[in-house]
Amino acid sequence: MNESGRVEAFSDGVFAIAITLLVLEIKVPEGAGDRLWSDLGAMWPSYAAYAVTFLIIGVMWVNHHTVFQCIARVDRTLLFINLILLMGVAALPWPAAVVARYLREGNAAHVALAVYGLFMVFHALAFQAMWWHLTRTGHLFDERVDVVAARATRARFALGSVAYPAAVGLAFVSAPLTLAVHGLLAVYYAFNQVPVPIKAEGVVTEPSGGGK
Amino acid sequence: MNESGRVEAFSDGVFAIAITLLVLEIKVPEGAGDRLWSDLGAMWPSYAAYAVTFLIIGVMWVNHHTVFQCIARVDRTLLFINLILLMGVAALPWPAAVVARYLREGNAAHVALAVYGLFMVFHALAFQAMWWHLTRTGHLFDERVDVVAARATRARFALGSVAYPAAVGLAFVSAPLTLAVHGLLAVYYAFNQVPVPIKAEGVVTEPSGGGK
Amino acid sequence: MNESGRVEAFSDGVFAIAITLLVLEIKVPEGAGDRLWSDLGAMWPSYAAYAVTFLIIGVMWVNHHTVFQCIARVDRTLLFINLILLMGVAALPWPAAVVARYLREGNAAHVALAVYGLFMVFHALAFQAMWWHLTRTGHLFDERVDVVAARATRARFALGSVAYPAAVGLAFVSAPLTLAVHGLLAVYYAFNQVPVPIKAEGVVTEPSGGGK
Amino acid sequence: MNESGRVEAFSDGVFAIAITLLVLEIKVPEGAGDRLWSDLGAMWPSYAAYAVTFLIIGVMWVNHHTVFQCIARVDRTLLFINLILLMGVAALPWPAAVVARYLREGNAAHVALAVYGLFMVFHALAFQAMWWHLTRTGHLFDERVDVVAARATRARFALGSVAYPAAVGLAFVSAPLTLAVHGLLAVYYAFNQVPVPIKAEGVVTEPSGGGK
Repeated sequence: MNESGRVEAFSDGVFAIAITLLVLEIKVPEGAGDRLWSDLGAMWPSYAAYAVTFLIIGVMWVNHHTVFQCIARVDRTLLFINLILLMGVAALPWPAAVVARYLREGNAAHVALAVYGLFMVFHALAFQAMWWHLTRTGHLFDERVDVVAARATRARFALGSVAYPAAVGLAFVSAPLTLAVHGLLAVYYAFNQVPVPIKAEGVVTEPSGGGK
Repeated sequence: MNESGRVEAFSDGVFAIAITLLVLEIKVPEGAGDRLWSDLGAMWPSYAAYAVTFLIIGVMWVNHHTVFQCIARVDRTLLFINLILLMGVAALPWPAAVVARYLREGNAAHVALAVYGLFMVFHALAFQAMWWHLTRTGHLFDERVDVVAARATRARFALGSVAYPAAVGLAFVSAPLTLAVHGLLAVYYAFNQVPVPIKAEGVVTEPSGGGK
Repeated sequence: MNESGRVEAFSDGVFAIAITLLVLEIKVPEGAGDRLWSDLGAMWPSYAAYAVTFLIIGVMWVNHHTVFQCIARVDRTLLFINLILLMGVAALPWPAAVVARYLREGNAAHVALAVYGLFMVFHALAFQAMWWHLTRTGHLFDERVDVVAARATRARFALGSVAYPAAVGLAFVSAPLTLAVHGLLAVYYAFNQVPVPIKAEGVVTEPSGGGK
Repeated sequence: MNESGRVEAFSDGVFAIAITLLVLEIKVPEGAGDRLWSDLGAMWPSYAAYAVTFLIIGVMWVNHHTVFQCIARVDRTLLFINLILLMGVAALPWPAAVVARYLREGNAAHVALAVYGLFMVFHALAFQAMWWHLTRTGHLFDERVDVVAARATRARFALGSVAYPAAVGLAFVSAPLTLAVHGLLAVYYAFNQVPVPIKAEGVVTEPSGGGK
């Protein structure tokens, strides 16, 4: 396995564990007795937080993989930025649990969703830092990547990250709506992605487009 | 590693973590003192829920693997269906914990097993959605797969998924019996599986039948 | 990756997760204030249960790997036996937590260690079932393996598994001593292992002896 | 996969799981109501313990990988030392949780950070034991490694491990300062590492320097 493959395998492990730990946030209701159906129904914020955060981590995994598909070498800075990004990903079970706990509680719900949104801002910044580092010289890229075109995508990457600060603001308008928006953004990104430009032969838009 | 191999590795990680997190549902009895044997014995619903759910995830892993063995390419839709399927698998420690907590409590036991059964219905639907998507055009399959014959297996796949809604109904008759049925279905599927048809040379029924 | 490689990778994942989940058994003392040193010291059963169980899972991983190194094909029965074995391995954080909780509590300590020992008996039986299945016809083995000689090691495998029932009995004499014996058995097995006989060239005793 | 590759994959799994389990230490505040912002702010020791320990495990993973990159064979002793090292790594969520719980509590904070520092001393000793074993004869190294030069780095390895006992002492001066020092040491080691000497062609300082 080459070096970037090992960093990717470690990152994949963190993504897979974080996504699976999300379930620990969904509690078993205590002393429900004959009211178990209604007690389970009242826990809908837990299910919503689980589903939305699961999609987000899943889509981030795909994006992370698409970027690493184009990397042939790693340096210390890339390792460090990747570690900072994973620090945010691995922490996601916590804001998900905060949202699940406070989604139905007035002001606290606004705060919970704002914190949730700040994590997404953090991820967007970390992804951008990684992309800027990669496109600055391009020496870590696989030779198939068109570095000049890749550098030109920086603005679109940055544009995309405007949505998350807006979602932090939206948290103070409606917490459930904000959670739904995060879910829709994840579905949107699942089917639309900034492609990594490839020399001559075209553009890799589908993860299936480039074997390794 | 090719692209479907990476999706499979990520999925395997989620299966392995979900199956291992099941143990967190088995609690340590508090303040048992001299009654530890009987306190441990009274926890049999936890052991039953653990064993049955462990078998189910294990067999689902084998089935998932058998399907992916025949896939050479992934597209966005397959990635998305797979993510939805994994969302159900990774959640299984929760219905298992609900069953363990309420299996001996009258009406709540019926509800717990109905919820448990609904998760199995969800998995069956997600597996079917994946199989329909794969067999619709067949362009994601390895060239060894006989697409026409594979499409013809759709009905048998659908047939298999009748058992799970029935188990949801059975939950309201007897909760322990329903849990036992889920365990027996898992053992049955461990040794009987809808094969993926292979051109000419025959049929892959054993996971060992096709190297990658 | 060949088929046995994938089963092994899944098994390795379960071993790695179970061994890492052990730490959840070690609790943070509450309200310790100025007595934190002594409160931490009083938790020695947690540390002992962690260390011993960590060694046991680590050594079982090595043994599992040594067996799978010699396997070229898997069938349904092997998959099923392996799943049953993993069901015991993945459950180990629970008996470890029971031991940590009750090691200092009179009669309950004896029960806790007896339960712990029963898990080891379970593992020994599952390993033996796997070895009997493998050596019965030998058709799953790599062609390097000497099947007749391998079958002759069955008795030594069985002999080894006498120690664990004895440890169940010892639990009723002294719980801390029994835990120490389990630790010593793990260290012993770390350096001594029933070798898998190889044709002609000799015997694989060191995991490093046979590449794959 | 060769033998050292499998040990490394297992170790990577343990590193990835331990680093992701850290998040379980960050609790969801109960009954916060309108004070959620301030309640979340008061939890800063949890965030600090998470971030510092995440960096430490991440950097240890890189170091572990750098060492294993140079290993072509494993023996029983190396397996055992590696298992002891992993026993410390996998336990790290616990001292992190102790620090998070007691960082603001007078004397208990000193004890918590001393315990935290002792784990780092343990890791330094385990890494040194591994390095001494590897450089004693050098027969486990890849043939590219310059064994004589590698043996000469022992002193520098030992020198580096003076910092951690000092941090144990510092814990009794200021607990928050000690935690910050641990974080800074991790960042320092992220960018500076004792290189493994390579024959002729020079020295592997960057993980990207040697493919496997």
